[in-house]
Amino acid sequence: MSGDNPIRIGLLSCTNIVRKLSRAINLSPNATISALATTTTSSIEEAKSFAESNNFPPNTKIHSSYESLLEDPDVDAVYLPIPASLHVEWAVRAAWQGKHILLDKPVALNVSEFDQIVEACEVNGVQFMDGTQWMHNPRTAKFMDFIKDFEIKTVHSCFSFAANENFLKHDIRVKAGLDGLGALGDTGWYTIQAALVANNFELPKTVTALPGPVLNDAGIVLSCGALFDWEEDGITATIYCSFLANLTMEITAIGAKGTVSVHDFVIPYRETEAAFTTSTRGCLSEHKVMTELPQEACMVIEFARLVGEVKNRGAKPDGFWLSFSRKTQLLVDAVKESIDNNLEPVILSGR
Amino acid sequence: MSGDNPIRIGLLSCTNIVRKLSRAINLSPNATISALATTTTSSIEEAKSFAESNNFPPNTKIHSSYESLLEDPDVDAVYLPIPASLHVEWAVRAAWQGKHILLDKPVALNVSEFDQIVEACEVNGVQFMDGTQWMHNPRTAKFMDFIKDFEIKTVHSCFSFAANENFLKHDIRVKAGLDGLGALGDTGWYTIQAALVANNFELPKTVTALPGPVLNDAGIVLSCGALFDWEEDGITATIYCSFLANLTMEITAIGAKGTVSVHDFVIPYRETEAAFTTSTRGCLSEHKVMTELPQEACMVIEFARLVGEVKNRGAKPDGFWLSFSRKTQLLVDAVKESIDNNLEPVILSGR
Repeated sequence: MSGDNPIRIGLLSCTNIVRKLSRAINLSPNATISALATTTTSSIEEAKSFAESNNFPPNTKIHSSYESLLEDPDVDAVYLPIPASLHVEWAVRAAWQGKHILLDKPVALNVSEFDQIVEACEVNGVQFMDGTQWMHNPRTAKFMDFIKDFEIKTVHSCFSFAANENFLKHDIRVKAGLDGLGALGDTGWYTIQAALVANNFELPKTVTALPGPVLNDAGIVLSCGALFDWEEDGITATIYCSFLANLTMEITAIGAKGTVSVHDFVIPYRETEAAFTTSTRGCLSEHKVMTELPQEACMVIEFARLVGEVKNRGAKPDGFWLSFSRKTQLLVDAVKESIDNNLEPVILSGR
Repeated sequence: MSGDNPIRIGLLSCTNIVRKLSRAINLSPNATISALATTTTSSIEEAKSFAESNNFPPNTKIHSSYESLLEDPDVDAVYLPIPASLHVEWAVRAAWQGKHILLDKPVALNVSEFDQIVEACEVNGVQFMDGTQWMHNPRTAKFMDFIKDFEIKTVHSCFSFAANENFLKHDIRVKAGLDGLGALGDTGWYTIQAALVANNFELPKTVTALPGPVLNDAGIVLSCGALFDWEEDGITATIYCSFLANLTMEITAIGAKGTVSVHDFVIPYRETEAAFTTSTRGCLSEHKVMTELPQEACMVIEFARLVGEVKNRGAKPDGFWLSFSRKTQLLVDAVKESIDNNLEPVILSGR
């Protein structure tokens, strides 16, 4: 495996998140940046300068369109940091070009759109992963081990940050035509994943938005809460996501036999060390997980490993990530549906 | 004030909680134990031995009935660690004997019972306080100061412990005839107070029990969650209380300008130091509050101080504690009503 060439990743667009991800790719021994596509908003010259200032390999190809990058035979996989409204089009196109896909959250504007991506990935045998980094922090696997043993009864997770006025007016995450799911598709995505992680990735039976969601004039969610109910198991979760409240990134998972608390689950306050707390039988323990690489590099390494299995060893793509993203998107949709439907519970069975 | 004699407290019954409170009274310079009343379950001899082994003052009078203690002119105030079903009778009697009252939570089986206590206290000019100790930990005042500045948007609080089989069969907190409010009146009491504390003691507009409450065969709540909604302010709180989940004592209060987290709000893990965390603008601070005395002694000192104001300086009783207990009881009742009414929201206006 170590003899394999690094997986060659093409990046669509020159946004800030690409800066972070390109650093992560540079830190990943099994991946490399091979191409960058400009959009109408940046020229070839700007893209070259972006590539240089972010330490892209000197031979990185600059494409003047997404199409051209997707046709490049020197690209194994693509990272798509584009607005959610464009995901279905470009992820499906990428899959049909045989490119493996790392896709930002929310993965689509709704699950039926995402199902088109799922189908394209499955038909073309490409590996999919959504770009949610916290799942790849080694801490997450560690606290999931505790959660498995704790017989979880209830989970509360929240992710909020206080966006400034400029963000609330202009960011793509508050625009109906772009990332139309607002805080729910952004910070809410993480809290929903946390609820799924704490419940062994099982979908709840019902989803009910909590009173008090805040929407902007375009109907985009700026802040909301929701309740997930697993019914016969007596397990519940509450989530809270917001662009209007102070930075908070909490998971509290309480079980019959123990409690797990994480206070910075989305992005650890320190890049080289991530902590969480467990308590069992009145005994409190703080666990520190050392992380040699930032979590976004851990994600790239795992993505490239899976792509390598497909490319070099003819393995089938690992379907876990498609399934996890689909469940998350389904819950995003259900919370939105409950908000739109006067906070009525949404029953998930059969979805 | 320092020249005043200590407030003389009479204790009704010899339960375990009396052990803890008698230690607290012994630690309080402005209070002393002057009398102990036995119940039918313990003899005078047993009461004497209880008093001795818990370092009661040697001249503590032993009464063979509650009535007799309430008539004792050497008793200024009483502590009533008796089942909630007996609160209305004995608190009202105590008030009519002019005794100031420290009453365990839940203060009654419902708010209409509690209103009889309120009336008796007001008519007789006696000081009332419920025996919820965490409110008196100096930490609580400290984090309330932060909460005031943070423009709170949402609060989550939980208090659970995993009761053993014996407790779940025999404890008065799971018996319909005794403390009939179960986990809701016990651990839930604290979580409700936390929600009120975080919202400047304002009652929410609606209360909705969350799905999945667990009740025993007698209909007593063993575990439940609830949502409080302040409506026009867009503020919500969720609570979770349980006898069936691992010991957890969390408050997370998230505001536009900051977040307060407390991980052991009910009983700090350490008696001499209590911590909480704030975050504002991405900056995390841990605050440690040194506590010379355990929080139950802080409570006794404050109670005795208020009683002293009435007794020695002719002050009017401080009505804050009656009002806070009443609000808490009202919310306990509302959660129970919502549970009994198929999780329908309960509108509090006018109550």
